[in-house]
Amino acid sequence: MNPRAAPYILLVISAVQGFRYSELEQHVNSKQEEYVEALREWVAIESDSSNVLKRPDLHHMMEKAAQKLRLMGGMVELVDIGQQELPDGQTLALPKVVTAQFGSDPNKRTVCIYGHVDVQPAKMDDGWATDPYNLTDINGNLYGRGASDNKAPVLAWIHAVEAYQALHMELPVNVKFIIEGMEETGSNGLEDMIVAQRDIFFSDVDYIIISDCGWLSRRPALTYGTRGNCYFFAEVIEGPKQDLHSGVYGGTVIEPMTDLIGILDTLIDPNGKILIPGIREAVAPLSDEEWKMYQDIQFDLENYKNKIGVDQLMYNSKVDLLAHMWRYPTVSIHGIQGAFSDHGTKTVIPAKVVAKFSIRQVPNMDPAVVKKQVTDYLHLVFSKRKSPNKLKVTMVIGAKPWLADTQDPVFEAGKAAIKRVFNVDPDLIREGATIPIARTFQDVTGKSIIMMPIGGFDDGLHSQNEKMSRYNYIEGTKYFIAYLHEVSLIKKTSV
Amino acid sequence: MNPRAAPYILLVISAVQGFRYSELEQHVNSKQEEYVEALREWVAIESDSSNVLKRPDLHHMMEKAAQKLRLMGGMVELVDIGQQELPDGQTLALPKVVTAQFGSDPNKRTVCIYGHVDVQPAKMDDGWATDPYNLTDINGNLYGRGASDNKAPVLAWIHAVEAYQALHMELPVNVKFIIEGMEETGSNGLEDMIVAQRDIFFSDVDYIIISDCGWLSRRPALTYGTRGNCYFFAEVIEGPKQDLHSGVYGGTVIEPMTDLIGILDTLIDPNGKILIPGIREAVAPLSDEEWKMYQDIQFDLENYKNKIGVDQLMYNSKVDLLAHMWRYPTVSIHGIQGAFSDHGTKTVIPAKVVAKFSIRQVPNMDPAVVKKQVTDYLHLVFSKRKSPNKLKVTMVIGAKPWLADTQDPVFEAGKAAIKRVFNVDPDLIREGATIPIARTFQDVTGKSIIMMPIGGFDDGLHSQNEKMSRYNYIEGTKYFIAYLHEVSLIKKTSV
Repeated sequence: MNPRAAPYILLVISAVQGFRYSELEQHVNSKQEEYVEALREWVAIESDSSNVLKRPDLHHMMEKAAQKLRLMGGMVELVDIGQQELPDGQTLALPKVVTAQFGSDPNKRTVCIYGHVDVQPAKMDDGWATDPYNLTDINGNLYGRGASDNKAPVLAWIHAVEAYQALHMELPVNVKFIIEGMEETGSNGLEDMIVAQRDIFFSDVDYIIISDCGWLSRRPALTYGTRGNCYFFAEVIEGPKQDLHSGVYGGTVIEPMTDLIGILDTLIDPNGKILIPGIREAVAPLSDEEWKMYQDIQFDLENYKNKIGVDQLMYNSKVDLLAHMWRYPTVSIHGIQGAFSDHGTKTVIPAKVVAKFSIRQVPNMDPAVVKKQVTDYLHLVFSKRKSPNKLKVTMVIGAKPWLADTQDPVFEAGKAAIKRVFNVDPDLIREGATIPIARTFQDVTGKSIIMMPIGGFDDGLHSQNEKMSRYNYIEGTKYFIAYLHEVSLIKKTSV
Repeated sequence: MNPRAAPYILLVISAVQGFRYSELEQHVNSKQEEYVEALREWVAIESDSSNVLKRPDLHHMMEKAAQKLRLMGGMVELVDIGQQELPDGQTLALPKVVTAQFGSDPNKRTVCIYGHVDVQPAKMDDGWATDPYNLTDINGNLYGRGASDNKAPVLAWIHAVEAYQALHMELPVNVKFIIEGMEETGSNGLEDMIVAQRDIFFSDVDYIIISDCGWLSRRPALTYGTRGNCYFFAEVIEGPKQDLHSGVYGGTVIEPMTDLIGILDTLIDPNGKILIPGIREAVAPLSDEEWKMYQDIQFDLENYKNKIGVDQLMYNSKVDLLAHMWRYPTVSIHGIQGAFSDHGTKTVIPAKVVAKFSIRQVPNMDPAVVKKQVTDYLHLVFSKRKSPNKLKVTMVIGAKPWLADTQDPVFEAGKAAIKRVFNVDPDLIREGATIPIARTFQDVTGKSIIMMPIGGFDDGLHSQNEKMSRYNYIEGTKYFIAYLHEVSLIKKTSV
């Protein structure tokens, strides 16, 4: 046992205080079909935030979530976060953010659950085996768009509160909810709302909980970090004033595409090593402790290969692979705009081409520094070509990584809750992807953040046939119930 | 005077035989407005061969051309060349090929004029200053889609024949026409037709004339060569089975896009030097004679720069530039299919990417050899990356260059005609682009081919605001009249 994990002993105290977990557990078991029905109702609403034609459904979804919380006696608000400007200049009302509060006892801890109830697009034609908006149970898996991302986790948190209420048990902590409807399109309007509410809604919040990701394997996990993202445009400009015929002009002009390919090829070597000076040097070294932690994580390389469909990964050892997935930067070249990208055989010299690439950010990288490193390096490389064309490098996204202290009592409480419900120690994992809202919460509110996924590793978020298993949904609800108890045991002075 | 240019002395003989050129010249001058009206009528027909919805217009255009030739007493046929298969599997009738014959005197030479009356797409929204299908005269330039490419040249040839008829002069040669309606989309069906007609329509043809290109400057030109084209697809396949999220998976997989960029960067160096072994070695060396010829060609580097809109070209001397435009191979990278090419910031690892690039062919390159050189080289380069992904290289077009013997009497006749009409010696030029039909005519029929452009260097083929100047159109008609006379003087035995 880690000597720093003092809060762990609180688990012992909890028994003394008489946490009636088995009654809550039984209650959840008895409610299983009602929970599935609730999910079915939510999945049936096409709350696709990327489709403006579905905006009425999205408003309806927010109202439905608010109404559920109101009926439970929560102090609920639908917070207006303004308008969204569409590319054609029209404006459209953003879905209101639902906030709710259960309890305001100053002697208790206050947790704030973040979730979203909007979904990615989905239609049968994409290759769904079942109607994405009609929750379908096949062998205990509940298929439907938004089932795992993020409707079931939000419902599981609501049901966790409801269970305490149903059994007339006092909530061990004050519980707040903040539920948005624009997560899938970039949480439009949410950051401003968080800033505005920092000293109001968030003033008494101790911990912010996000359950918007998944486990790494069948073993439950707690997530303590995400990578950030610096997204670059590298444009070769001031070449020909318009696209040229490659037969007529080929050989007489310095082609922007050749220049662009030339500089893109200097970003990484065939082994994935980033060649931009300073990037690798900035990365926090892998500690022995971390290395050991990675070794213990349940992760099957063969499964991972099969999932992606490749015979060989960039690294052959579990530790190397996890490290490069989570805690090392990576460069991905996404594509080139302005060149010929259709089927067929156009014979064009593109006049202006824009490469899109991004570098995932990890501690201790700083997007502002990375911007300068990348820009300086590419300009240097480009200058060596002695091309008459010009290079323009722009960083269009600069999202920082998020990393929590796993010694924080919120994580100890999470471990205890998992141990109680699943009878295993969780994996402590990171996400390779960027969840900007975690970093926003951290930077704006200064609170401790924890990610408590209940999604399965194979839920197919954003893909066809997204699902949430009954097991994860129902056991996840119990886990959240247990967590509310465990987190209540963190002494106010221990933070 | 070149001692090999024996036919040149025939010019002297022509005067003796009493070629009544000035009467023909006057006739053309008097008909100028009628010729412009004829072009206006043809331009008004939206004979866009790439737009299936315009196919009725295209059929109408072929019929209109046929009818004009019929009214002149030509022996006209509309040759069915079958069906076109569309990408969706539907079939559409190809526009018939118009053939016509004026005269069949076995004692005369027979020339065959090739032309096309289909056009590239055009709409006002593309940036036209005037309606592209309403021929508009601005300061002696006739603006309209297809004006220069290729309706005015075809009409000029027809009017040349008509002029002899109007003045009751016997045509000095038998004249055949072959006019197609699919040139802009690859002359679908034409090669089969040429093969089928080799021993029929083409049996008595001595020379084939193509007027489907332009001058290099304001000085008239004869074109004696075109570059061929080998078009390649380089696909990186057998990577991930589907596109991956670059945050979630970045760092764990060997990205096909990185592999592709890596191999593309080995095709050419920043100075345009082709790095594929064997390509440069195959190129016929530049002879002193050729070098001297290039030196004498009227070509202004500053004009050329302005036209393209660049400050610096690949080469600073006229000879180097012309040589690399016409008689050296070049590699152009056109684009990448399968990667992200839209606006915005998608964070994707593309699973399968296909680069499109082409190498312009010159003597003595052989497309079959080039195919092997490129394929072997890219596989070698790729293998050094030790990527688990696979590379597939395909040559989808393998069009040979065309090069005529400028000492051939057809060229001497062309020079004489230009001298008579424009009172200058023409530039002998090549085309950097590929006109596959020239090589097809050469290979299938074995006849001598000459390209006799009358388009201006700034006609804007395939672009907005395409035009044909009245000067080039009318003087071009006189030039064709003179050519029919000059070519008749080539003794049957001299070939």
